[in-house]
Amino acid sequence: MYAIINGSLVRTEEAKILITDLAIQRGYGVFDFFRTVNNQPLFAEDHLDRFFHSAKEMHLAKDLNREQLKTMIRQLMEENNTPDSGIRITLTGGYSADGYLLAAPNLLITQTVFQFNAANFETGTHLVTYAHQRQLPEVKTIDYLHAIYLQPYIKENNATDVLYFQHNEITECPRSNFFLVTEKDEIITPAKNVLKGITRKRILSLKSFNSREASIAPADLANAKEAFITSTTKKVLPVLKIDGRMIGDGRPGEISRAIFNQLTD
Amino acid sequence: MYAIINGSLVRTEEAKILITDLAIQRGYGVFDFFRTVNNQPLFAEDHLDRFFHSAKEMHLAKDLNREQLKTMIRQLMEENNTPDSGIRITLTGGYSADGYLLAAPNLLITQTVFQFNAANFETGTHLVTYAHQRQLPEVKTIDYLHAIYLQPYIKENNATDVLYFQHNEITECPRSNFFLVTEKDEIITPAKNVLKGITRKRILSLKSFNSREASIAPADLANAKEAFITSTTKKVLPVLKIDGRMIGDGRPGEISRAIFNQLTD
Repeated sequence: MYAIINGSLVRTEEAKILITDLAIQRGYGVFDFFRTVNNQPLFAEDHLDRFFHSAKEMHLAKDLNREQLKTMIRQLMEENNTPDSGIRITLTGGYSADGYLLAAPNLLITQTVFQFNAANFETGTHLVTYAHQRQLPEVKTIDYLHAIYLQPYIKENNATDVLYFQHNEITECPRSNFFLVTEKDEIITPAKNVLKGITRKRILSLKSFNSREASIAPADLANAKEAFITSTTKKVLPVLKIDGRMIGDGRPGEISRAIFNQLTD
Repeated sequence: MYAIINGSLVRTEEAKILITDLAIQRGYGVFDFFRTVNNQPLFAEDHLDRFFHSAKEMHLAKDLNREQLKTMIRQLMEENNTPDSGIRITLTGGYSADGYLLAAPNLLITQTVFQFNAANFETGTHLVTYAHQRQLPEVKTIDYLHAIYLQPYIKENNATDVLYFQHNEITECPRSNFFLVTEKDEIITPAKNVLKGITRKRILSLKSFNSREASIAPADLANAKEAFITSTTKKVLPVLKIDGRMIGDGRPGEISRAIFNQLTD
């Protein structure tokens, strides 16, 4: 497989950057990620919109050109010839002379094999809650420090992922948005202090369901009829347990399944 | 100059790591930094203590050996022959197969020319306050996302650095501890939610001054007789203005100077 670093094609086993980069020195960068199926990028324009928003917010967008970026992505796809994949574009703080001041960003594009596995829907996921608010939540930065720090905590709690809350409001999982189905079959997802996912947006736009943005308190989890998380790689993944307590009857719910079935891509 | 990556000496212009490293993918890593003067490391044991604490907290310490690390540092110092320098040791999350799960850490050691400039004491610094709490504050992680994000904000406010506060408590600057001298000549510094600096510890241990850990509210800044920030590279740097308002008479204070003069190294 190949990657592209600052416009140049390199073999992934040689895809390296200098350790003076601000991602390595200071954890500074933004990224986005989308899937390809049969060599067709899925919702690429939405992901590029968000990528440019993230880059601009973090002062990294100055020399970024959307058409050039799209050309590079096409070039990488042709070279790798991997029809079903995930493509990640990353923009770092660059090679900083003093290890602190922003420099010319480094643009990294990578592609990895990815095939969506519908069987994961039946397995679902178990979450454990944790009080934490991601910094700059509406920007897709590379900051997953807390999420990775919590990997042993998640394991100890027999969970597969963590669900953040702060000040009595549920927000999101580190890499997914959270949805809850109420006893009245309303589908709600937090509006504030979360990354606005592309799959989240698609679900909120489905006309056949009664969905909206609304606050969710940790106490609301006990009354949820169903719950699920969403992301580009998961689409809709039922949440079967939170903090060891079953959601509904502990099996994927009907509404979750109906939404999942509508998201054919 | 040379650097050391996982025990191997490499020229700095070739000191690279693969972009699959979790520092680049997820901003995950820890580090520490100390000075050398005349080829003598300053307070290296304190810095190594903190580095091992950080590594352990972030699940990166498993294969870390203190004697091996010290041997590598000595080797780098001999090779570079740069008597007055800064040495940074960084441990990243490693080359993760799926870009998320912790892998074998990468250990990076770099050395750069650094000479302490006593004239900076007279120039001092201007701070601008900002409501933010660093995540995992007592661990020296590579997360400076917010600090670098705020670089334009600091400039717009005619400041040279930012002073964080949250819930009515002043905490620290991104790379320095904050001290305030009260009207009663008490020297106080926040106790909670800060990185415990090595220079901070040295100052708190000076017998000839009345110093202690205590909460500082943003409103207390207006009554401060003096203020200063401390770090390995700055030692003691007087704060002459905060949010555009002078501290004392806007010149380096007597107590700040007396402490600065005691820190000969």
